[in-house]
Amino acid sequence: MKRLLPALALSAGLACTLPASAQFQKAEDAIKYRQAAYRVMAEHFGRLGAMANGRVPFDAKLAQENMAIVGALHTLPFSAFEPGTDKGAPNRARPEVWKEAAKFKAARDKLDGEMAKLSDAVKGGKLDAIKTAFGATGGACKGCHDDFRAKDYSAN
Amino acid sequence: MKRLLPALALSAGLACTLPASAQFQKAEDAIKYRQAAYRVMAEHFGRLGAMANGRVPFDAKLAQENMAIVGALHTLPFSAFEPGTDKGAPNRARPEVWKEAAKFKAARDKLDGEMAKLSDAVKGGKLDAIKTAFGATGGACKGCHDDFRAKDYSAN
Repeated sequence: MKRLLPALALSAGLACTLPASAQFQKAEDAIKYRQAAYRVMAEHFGRLGAMANGRVPFDAKLAQENMAIVGALHTLPFSAFEPGTDKGAPNRARPEVWKEAAKFKAARDKLDGEMAKLSDAVKGGKLDAIKTAFGATGGACKGCHDDFRAKDYSAN
Repeated sequence: MKRLLPALALSAGLACTLPASAQFQKAEDAIKYRQAAYRVMAEHFGRLGAMANGRVPFDAKLAQENMAIVGALHTLPFSAFEPGTDKGAPNRARPEVWKEAAKFKAARDKLDGEMAKLSDAVKGGKLDAIKTAFGATGGACKGCHDDFRAKDYSAN
């Protein structure tokens, strides 16, 4: 073991703010990544919502295209809330993300479940079912925002 | 036709800076969307590259997961270079994106082609083939950056 220790210490030192197991090299990278993933997802979720809520005509193919992007993206931000990523760039994650990790995980699981139902509804192509599932998914988004997203951005 | 004209004029008026056919409501939205899509894509392209270039051990499953995200994202930014989105938020798009639209389209097509080959290579699971395809795809990224991306961000 003795010989391993200097190597471990070196590798820990190189990681700066994040543990060596982290997928991101800097906290700033993780914060900007999750914000970016949310932004792209929100754009396509919004386009689906415009159809679900009758603001634009329903187009089953377009709904499926938007849902495919939302489906590919919605789990990504959660990989970027690693410990140590509360600071590093202005962001709105509340300390509860890490202090109440089990509750945050439950909010994520809730979203995953509603997203799966929404995906099925979009595949089914029935606007009424999509409307219901979209509302429930939006509720899961909002529930997590209410508990884990601050009103204002952090200073750094 | 006469009856349609007032409706068309009204819808054009509502769109403010972007044409009525635009998918984004404001130029700022389009700019931030394309920057966000590039950021998420670059993260996963980088993780694939770390394996292709031997900086981390090759893991076929992980390579496929990263490739799936890159595959879902790489066409998205191109939907957000609509006319009128050169300004609206600091960005690095050069005027040539719009002035040399055919050349920009060719650069995009080149990327699409290399991405398809990279996707096949990742599915095949042979590191040598992935390395070659990754290099060619990175070259397509760089070619487009060289011609269409400015060194510095615009002021607005």
